[in-house]
Amino acid sequence: MARRQKISDQLGEPVAGNGLLHRRFFLQSGAAVAGAAAALGTARAESISAVMPPWSKTPGAEFTGYGMPSRWRENIKRILVTNAPPGREVTGSCRTPLQYLEGAITPAGLHYVRNHNGTPDIDPSKHELAIHGMVKQPLIFTVDSLMRYPMESHIHFMECAGNSGGLNAPQAPQATAGDIHGLLSGSEWTGVKLSVLLQEAGLDPKATWILAEGADSAAMSRSVPVWKALDDAMIALYQNGEPIRPEQGFPMRLLLPGFEGNTNVKWLHRLKVMNTPMYTRDETSRYTELQPDGKAREFMLQMEPKSLILKPSFGMTMQGPGYYEISGLAWSGLGRVKQVDVSADGGKSWTQAALSGPVMPKALTRFRLPWMWSGQPVQLMSRTTDEKGRVQPTHAEWVAQYAPRQNFHFSAIQTWAIAADGKVSNIYV
Amino acid sequence: MARRQKISDQLGEPVAGNGLLHRRFFLQSGAAVAGAAAALGTARAESISAVMPPWSKTPGAEFTGYGMPSRWRENIKRILVTNAPPGREVTGSCRTPLQYLEGAITPAGLHYVRNHNGTPDIDPSKHELAIHGMVKQPLIFTVDSLMRYPMESHIHFMECAGNSGGLNAPQAPQATAGDIHGLLSGSEWTGVKLSVLLQEAGLDPKATWILAEGADSAAMSRSVPVWKALDDAMIALYQNGEPIRPEQGFPMRLLLPGFEGNTNVKWLHRLKVMNTPMYTRDETSRYTELQPDGKAREFMLQMEPKSLILKPSFGMTMQGPGYYEISGLAWSGLGRVKQVDVSADGGKSWTQAALSGPVMPKALTRFRLPWMWSGQPVQLMSRTTDEKGRVQPTHAEWVAQYAPRQNFHFSAIQTWAIAADGKVSNIYV
Repeated sequence: MARRQKISDQLGEPVAGNGLLHRRFFLQSGAAVAGAAAALGTARAESISAVMPPWSKTPGAEFTGYGMPSRWRENIKRILVTNAPPGREVTGSCRTPLQYLEGAITPAGLHYVRNHNGTPDIDPSKHELAIHGMVKQPLIFTVDSLMRYPMESHIHFMECAGNSGGLNAPQAPQATAGDIHGLLSGSEWTGVKLSVLLQEAGLDPKATWILAEGADSAAMSRSVPVWKALDDAMIALYQNGEPIRPEQGFPMRLLLPGFEGNTNVKWLHRLKVMNTPMYTRDETSRYTELQPDGKAREFMLQMEPKSLILKPSFGMTMQGPGYYEISGLAWSGLGRVKQVDVSADGGKSWTQAALSGPVMPKALTRFRLPWMWSGQPVQLMSRTTDEKGRVQPTHAEWVAQYAPRQNFHFSAIQTWAIAADGKVSNIYV
Repeated sequence: MARRQKISDQLGEPVAGNGLLHRRFFLQSGAAVAGAAAALGTARAESISAVMPPWSKTPGAEFTGYGMPSRWRENIKRILVTNAPPGREVTGSCRTPLQYLEGAITPAGLHYVRNHNGTPDIDPSKHELAIHGMVKQPLIFTVDSLMRYPMESHIHFMECAGNSGGLNAPQAPQATAGDIHGLLSGSEWTGVKLSVLLQEAGLDPKATWILAEGADSAAMSRSVPVWKALDDAMIALYQNGEPIRPEQGFPMRLLLPGFEGNTNVKWLHRLKVMNTPMYTRDETSRYTELQPDGKAREFMLQMEPKSLILKPSFGMTMQGPGYYEISGLAWSGLGRVKQVDVSADGGKSWTQAALSGPVMPKALTRFRLPWMWSGQPVQLMSRTTDEKGRVQPTHAEWVAQYAPRQNFHFSAIQTWAIAADGKVSNIYV
C-alpha cells in the first residue's frame, strides 16, 4: 500500500506543460483519483432524489424489430456537404460527427458517405461481379456464390483522400471535428479475400493493375495495383456484422485497407485485370496531389499516419478548471499506430497518450490522456507515429510540401486552442 | 513453390470425418483453391452482362443523416418473443437474428433486448446515478459529470441467462439459431470504470455486495459482488461508438463483462453498497438454477464457455455437394476463447477451427473451418474451450446436471443435422 501511494504521488505530477498527467495516472493510482476527481461527483445528504421521474412510474415502449438512437440525441447526425448545383444533391459527401462519438467503431448509420451520383438501389439477386481481362478464365460471381467462399473479418478505418482538406485554407476554419475531419469512419468488415477469387480466375503473372468499377450511374472507377489485390484486399459483404448498407456499397464493395476511400469502390461489379493503370476520370481529374512545381503526383494511394483530439474540440466549452480526459483517434494506412504524443503547450513539450487496445493495423485507435486544466489558455495537439516510423508533420511542414490549392491527403497535426473562457477554436501552429 | 504445393496437397486431405479440412487450407494453399472452389464462380464467355441494370442508368438516392439497411434485407429483424398477456407486450424479449449476421460485432439496432416493463424514454439532463450505502460520502453523478471521467473502450458479449433455454425441452425445437440462441450480442462498450467512482465515494472495506437498480418502471434490480465492481465493471455510456440506445439503457447501463445479461442493469440510477445481497425479486423468482434435488443455485453469475455454428444452421438449405465454409461464434464469460473444435460426424472426430483475431476476453469470437460436403447426411457440432480450461458439455451431460424445468445458463453443444436433401434440422446428440 505504501508503495502504491508512492507511485501515485509521482503520477500526480504533470509530465508535460500545461497540466498533462501520466497516461497511467488512473490505472496505477487509486488514491490519486479522489483528489483529482473529487469535484466531479456531487456530494448530497439525501442519496436519492425524492421526486420519482415519470419514466419510473409508467410502462415503457414496446419492442422494435430494428432499434434506433434516443430522440434526445437527434443532433448526432451526419453532416451534409455538397457544392453541387440545385437538383444535383446526390453528388457530394456527408460526414461522420466524430466529436459526438467514442470508442473506435463507427455505427454504420453514421459512416461517412462520398457519392458521385447518388446511392443506387441494387437488387442483390440481379447483381454480378465479373473478373476478366488478363486471367485464364473470366468468372462471374453472384452474392449467393460468394457466400460459400471462405471469409475474413477485420476492423479497419476508411478515410476519403479529401478529408481535412479544409485545413489547407489560408485561415484556419472555425468548424467542428466532424466538419473538418469527418470523412473518416471505422468498421468491422467481413468478406472474401480478393486473392482467392483472382487465383480461381487464373491471374496472368504479367498483370500489374486492376480496374475496379462500380454499378452506380457514375460508374465510379479506379485502378488498383495487383500487389494490393493479392495482399489484404477483400470483397466486403458485411459491415459491423450486418449486410453492407446501400450507402456503403450494398451488396458488395472493394475493401483496400489503408488506401484512400475512393479506391474502395462501392457497388462493385467489375474487376478488369490489366498491365497498366486505366487512368480513369476519377483518378486524373481529382485524387491527385499538386506539387509546388505544378506537376501532380498520381496514385498516392496509402493514407498517412494521422490523429485528432475530439475531447475537447471546436464547439465544446470547458466547464471550468479541473480534471479532464483528453481523448481522440489515431490511425495510419501503413499499419498499426505505434505511439500518440500529446502536447498542451503548442508543441513545446509532449507526453505519450494511452492507446486503447488491442491496436489493430489500419484501424482507428482511441487514445486517452488525463489532464488537469488550470483555466489558462492552452494549445492542444496530437501526433501519431506508426509502426513504419512515419510521423505526422506540422501544419507548416505539410503546407510547404504542396501547391496552395492541394487539398488531398492532408495529414498535418491539428491544433485546438482553448481560451481562458473555455471556448475551443481551431488554429494553425 | 514446390514446397507450397506439397503443403497444399497435405491440406487438401480431410482432417476429420465427413470432409472437414484443415483450418489453414485457404491460408497456405493457393493452388488448392482453384480445385476446391472452381465450381463456385461461373465461367462465362462474355465477361459482362450485355444488359445494363436500371440502377446503372439513373442517379441514385440522396444523402441521409442517419443511414439504414437495404430494403432488400428487410427480413433481418429482431425476433420478438413474449409470453405476456395482451396489453403487456412490453415484457419479454426480442432476439438477434444471428444466422443472418457475420463477424463479431452486432449492430446496435439488432442487439437483443430483454425488458421487464418496456423501454423508458429518459431525459438525460434529468437522469442521476447515486452511489450510497456503505461509502464515506454518498455521491450523485449526472451524464455531464461522467463525461469528464477517464473512459475505457472494450469489446464484450452480452448474453441473457435464459439464452438457449429452449434446448432443455424434451424434443429438439426446430427453429433458427436466432430463435434459440439470439439472446446474445456483441458490442464495443465505452464508459467509466465503476472502481473509479467507488473509490471517489470511499468504499467501506467491509462491503461485499452492491445493489444495482434501474430507473425503468420495473425498477429492475440485481445484487453484484464487490469484487466484480472493482474488477472490470463499467458505467457504459456508449455502444458501438454512439451514445447507448434506449433499448440498451440510455443514458447509462451497468456493464459486467461476462456476467449474465440481467445483471448489466439498464437505465442505471442507483448503486447501494452493502454487506449482503439484496435478494431482489429479479434474482430469486428467476435467474436461479434448479438442481435435481429441488434446491436452486443462486448467483451463478458468470456465463460459461459456449459456441454455435451459424453457417450452416436451421432454415438454410445446402446448395449441393462441394466446398462450404463452416462459420460460427464462440464465447466465454470467464475470459478468452482458447480453442473451438468442430465435428461433422456427431462428435466421433474433431478438428480445430480458425479463430478470427484478435481474440479478446469475454467477447464473441468468430470461428471458421473449410469443409467439403459429400452430399451425405452429417451432424455438425462445435465445442469451445476457454483460457481457464473449461469445455462445453454435451447436451446429455448438461441435462443430467439440472432439474427438468431448469432453463438458465444452458451451455451445451448445439448439433445441426444436415440431410441428403440439404435441409438442416436441430437434434440432440
